[in-house]
Amino acid sequence: MIYLQKMLPKTFIRHISQFAGVRDAAKYVPRRALLYVPASNQKMLDKIPMMQADSVVIELEDGVALTAKAEARAQATVALDKIPYHSLACQELGLRVNSVSSGLLEDDIKAVSKAEKLPHAFMVPKVDSPEDLVTIYNIFREHYGDERITNTNTRLVIWIESARALLDMPRILSSTLNLHKQAGFFKLDAVVFGSDDFCADIGATRSSHGTETLFARQKFVTCCKAFQLQAIDSVYIDIKDLDGLRRQSAEGRQWGFTGKQVIHPSQVSVVQEQFLPPKERIEWAQELVHAYSEHESLGKGAFQFRGQMIDRPLLLQALNIIQLVERVQN
Amino acid sequence: MIYLQKMLPKTFIRHISQFAGVRDAAKYVPRRALLYVPASNQKMLDKIPMMQADSVVIELEDGVALTAKAEARAQATVALDKIPYHSLACQELGLRVNSVSSGLLEDDIKAVSKAEKLPHAFMVPKVDSPEDLVTIYNIFREHYGDERITNTNTRLVIWIESARALLDMPRILSSTLNLHKQAGFFKLDAVVFGSDDFCADIGATRSSHGTETLFARQKFVTCCKAFQLQAIDSVYIDIKDLDGLRRQSAEGRQWGFTGKQVIHPSQVSVVQEQFLPPKERIEWAQELVHAYSEHESLGKGAFQFRGQMIDRPLLLQALNIIQLVERVQN
Amino acid sequence: MIYLQKMLPKTFIRHISQFAGVRDAAKYVPRRALLYVPASNQKMLDKIPMMQADSVVIELEDGVALTAKAEARAQATVALDKIPYHSLACQELGLRVNSVSSGLLEDDIKAVSKAEKLPHAFMVPKVDSPEDLVTIYNIFREHYGDERITNTNTRLVIWIESARALLDMPRILSSTLNLHKQAGFFKLDAVVFGSDDFCADIGATRSSHGTETLFARQKFVTCCKAFQLQAIDSVYIDIKDLDGLRRQSAEGRQWGFTGKQVIHPSQVSVVQEQFLPPKERIEWAQELVHAYSEHESLGKGAFQFRGQMIDRPLLLQALNIIQLVERVQN
Repeated sequence: MIYLQKMLPKTFIRHISQFAGVRDAAKYVPRRALLYVPASNQKMLDKIPMMQADSVVIELEDGVALTAKAEARAQATVALDKIPYHSLACQELGLRVNSVSSGLLEDDIKAVSKAEKLPHAFMVPKVDSPEDLVTIYNIFREHYGDERITNTNTRLVIWIESARALLDMPRILSSTLNLHKQAGFFKLDAVVFGSDDFCADIGATRSSHGTETLFARQKFVTCCKAFQLQAIDSVYIDIKDLDGLRRQSAEGRQWGFTGKQVIHPSQVSVVQEQFLPPKERIEWAQELVHAYSEHESLGKGAFQFRGQMIDRPLLLQALNIIQLVERVQN
Repeated sequence: MIYLQKMLPKTFIRHISQFAGVRDAAKYVPRRALLYVPASNQKMLDKIPMMQADSVVIELEDGVALTAKAEARAQATVALDKIPYHSLACQELGLRVNSVSSGLLEDDIKAVSKAEKLPHAFMVPKVDSPEDLVTIYNIFREHYGDERITNTNTRLVIWIESARALLDMPRILSSTLNLHKQAGFFKLDAVVFGSDDFCADIGATRSSHGTETLFARQKFVTCCKAFQLQAIDSVYIDIKDLDGLRRQSAEGRQWGFTGKQVIHPSQVSVVQEQFLPPKERIEWAQELVHAYSEHESLGKGAFQFRGQMIDRPLLLQALNIIQLVERVQN
Repeated sequence: MIYLQKMLPKTFIRHISQFAGVRDAAKYVPRRALLYVPASNQKMLDKIPMMQADSVVIELEDGVALTAKAEARAQATVALDKIPYHSLACQELGLRVNSVSSGLLEDDIKAVSKAEKLPHAFMVPKVDSPEDLVTIYNIFREHYGDERITNTNTRLVIWIESARALLDMPRILSSTLNLHKQAGFFKLDAVVFGSDDFCADIGATRSSHGTETLFARQKFVTCCKAFQLQAIDSVYIDIKDLDGLRRQSAEGRQWGFTGKQVIHPSQVSVVQEQFLPPKERIEWAQELVHAYSEHESLGKGAFQFRGQMIDRPLLLQALNIIQLVERVQN
C-alpha cells in the first residue's frame, strides 16, 4: 500500500479498510504469470529465488511422475524451509498438491506439513464439487492443526478442470469462501482454468484459435469475477510460438482474465507484459482512487467518476491495478 | 390488434386471449431502439414528443451527474404530467431510476410519485439479485400506494449489468414475474444488457468485434427468451461509426435480441431498420396466424405449420411480429 | 468388446466391469450419424436394413404431417416386428415419438407397444423439464408394463430444443438418470441438440457460420459430458453443400460432439468420416487401455499415462474410442 499511503490521507486508508473487499486488497498478490516447477527436479527447485514469474508453483501433481511422488514430497518439504522468502524475485511461492480424487492428497499434506514454513498459497487441482473442498479443509486441519494455520496469510488457489466443475462453479466458489469463513484459514484468492483436462473431459480437440473453449473460458471468468476472485487462463502449449502466446494472452486479458499459466520460463515475460493493464487503465485507476479519496473527505454518499457510478467492486479493481503496477515495477 | 381484428374471426380473438402469453401480446410494445434522455437536460425533455425511437427513456441514473439528481427528479416529475401522451412519435415513454445499491432509488420514487401520471414503463438498472426486486416493489408500493398502480398498464424493464446478475439471471427473472403476480402491478416486459458495466465488473476490455461478451450476450438472450421477455442489446459507443452500428445491430437481431440501446438520435433509424424482421419472417407470421385461425375454427388439437409443430411461444412470436410491423408502419 | 477380449487379460475385463461407467461401455452404440426415416413413408421404411447411418430413427414427430400420424404409427408398429435386426447395416434402430407437450405421445406409445419387439432406443423430442420425463416414464410403464421393459437394453435418447431446457439441462439430465435407476428401464444414453426449434424459440436466425448458437452448442456439450452422455449436433440444412456439412461436422467433433443428425442419406458418409476420431487419438486410446491393464495387474493405485493422471472418465473415453473403431470398421 506504499502508493496509497503516500498519496492518500490516513483517514481515508482507515475508512477504506473497513470494506472487506478492500481490506483484502492490502494483501493483493499479482498473478500475471504462474510458473510450474516440478518438485521432483532439485535443480529447478534451486533456481526458484531467481525466477521472475509473479507466482512460482512447486508442483507435486501432473508435472511429477507417480514413481517420483515420494521424492518430490521430500524435496518440496525441504525447499519450503530453505527458500529465502525475503529475497525472492517472484511475488508468491505456491505449492500444488494432488487432487482429492487421486487419493494422493493426504500423503502430500502429511509430508509437507513437516516443514516449519507454509507456502504463500496452497494450490489444489481438479476441484470437482463443494464436497471436495470439505475434504481438503479437513485434511489441512488434521495435519497442520488449527493453531498453525489460523490467521496466516496463506491463500488458496483452485483449478477447475472438468465439465461438472464448470457447470457447478458458482456453488463451488461460494462454498469455498464459506468454508474459509468457518475454518479461519486459507482464503480462496484465485481460480485457474485447466483447459487440457477440461478438453479431455468433454472430448474436445484443442486448436490454435481456441474456439472450442470459448464458452468455458468466458463462463469461467464470469464466475471468478462474480466472487471477486482472480481468473487464471489456460496454458499455451507450443512453447516455441511466442507470437501465438502473445495473441492468446492479449485475448485472455481482454476477456477479463488476470493472468495465465506458463510451462516454460521463456513464456514469462511475454505473458507479464500482456497482463499489465494498458496505460489509460492505470491512469483511470489512479484518478478514480484520488477522486474517491477527495469525495470521502467531503462525506458525500454515492460517488460518480467519469460519468459512471462507482461501487466497491470498481474501487477494488482500481486499487488492484495500482498495486499491481507498484508491485511489479518496484 | 387492428390487423388481427380485420382478418381474424372474433371467436378466434376471444379464444386466443385466454392464453396468458397471447393476451399480453395485446399490449405489445416494440422496443427496437431505446433512447436515453437525461432528465437534467430540459431542452431534450422538451423534444421528447418528436423523438422517433420506439422507447424513449427519461434518465435519472448514469446520464445524470450526482449534483444534478435533485433538479433531474424535479424536471422528470413535471415532464411526466406535461407530455402529450396521445401525440408521441415514440411507442413508449419510460423512466429510468437509480439502482437499489446506489441508495438513490427511494428519493427518485418519492419525487416522481408526485406526478399524477405514471410512465409507460419503470426502468431499473443494475438489478443484482431477487432481493433487489423485493426492495424495488416495496418502494413502489410505499410511495405510490397499491391503488394507484394496481391494474395499470405500466410495465417494468430491468438491466442486467454484473457477473453475479448474469449467473443468477433465471432466478432473477422468475422472481420478478412472481413478484408481479403477487403485487398486481408492473409486469416485467423486457430486460436490457448493460455491457459497459458488465465489462467493468469482469475486468474485460470492449473491442469493436465484441467477442469478449459473446457468452454474456448469448446467455442473456437465452434467459430472456426462456421467460418470453424482450432482450435489449448493448450500446454501440462509437456514434460516428454507423456501419459498425449496423453490423452489430444485425448481429444482435440474428442472435435473438429484439432491440438495442441507443445513446444518440442519429443511431435510431439504423437500429430500427435492422430490428425490423425480414420480409419472409413477416409473411411466415401472417400465414401462421391465419392458418392457426382456420385450424381453431375446425376444433382440431395439435397444430402444424410448414412442417413444424406450432406451440404457444411460436404463436406469440408470430403475433408479436405482426403487431411490430403494424405499430411501426402506421 | 471383441478387441478388449483379444488383447486384455480376463481378470482386467472382470475388474473393469465393476465400474458403472465402464460396464456400460460394453453396450456402447456409436452414433456418428443419426438419420431420420418418416414412418409415414413405407418405401423408406423398407430400405432401413440397407441404411448405413449408425443410428436410423423411425420418425413419428416433425417429419410426419398431423393427418398422417395414425398411418405412421401403424406402419412403425409393423416395421418394428418385421425388421431383420441381425442383418442391419446400422448399429441402432431408434423410434422417435412425439413430445409430451404435443399431446400425441400417449397415442404413439399405445400404438407401438402392440409390436412384439422394442426398438433399440426410444427417442423423445422437446424435453423441457424434469417433469416431462416423469410423464414419459409413466406412459411407458402404463402401456408396456414393467415386465416387458425392465432389464432390456433399450436406451433413451432425448432432444433439447428450447431456451428453458438448455438453462435447466443439468437438472433434466440428472433427473433422467435418476428416473432410470428407479424405474429399471430405458437408460439415457445420448442427447440431441435441436437447433432449429431452439433458434425459433429464442428468435435467432440461422446462418451458415452458426455463431448464433455457439453458446447453446458449447453449453450443451458441457452438460452432456458432465453426465458422460453422447452429444449429437445440429442438422446441416443445405443438403447440397457437402463442404459446409464437412466443415460443420469437423467443428462439432472438435468441440466435443460425438455425432450429428442427418436429414438425407447423402450426408451420412461425410458425417461418419468426420466423427471418426483421428489416428493419433485411436493410438492414444489403445495404448492407454493397454497401459492401464498392465498397471492393474501390478495392483498399483493412481495411474498416470503420458504425463496425465487417468481417471474413470478418461478410461471410459478410451474404451469408447476403441469400440467405436471396432464397431464401424468390422
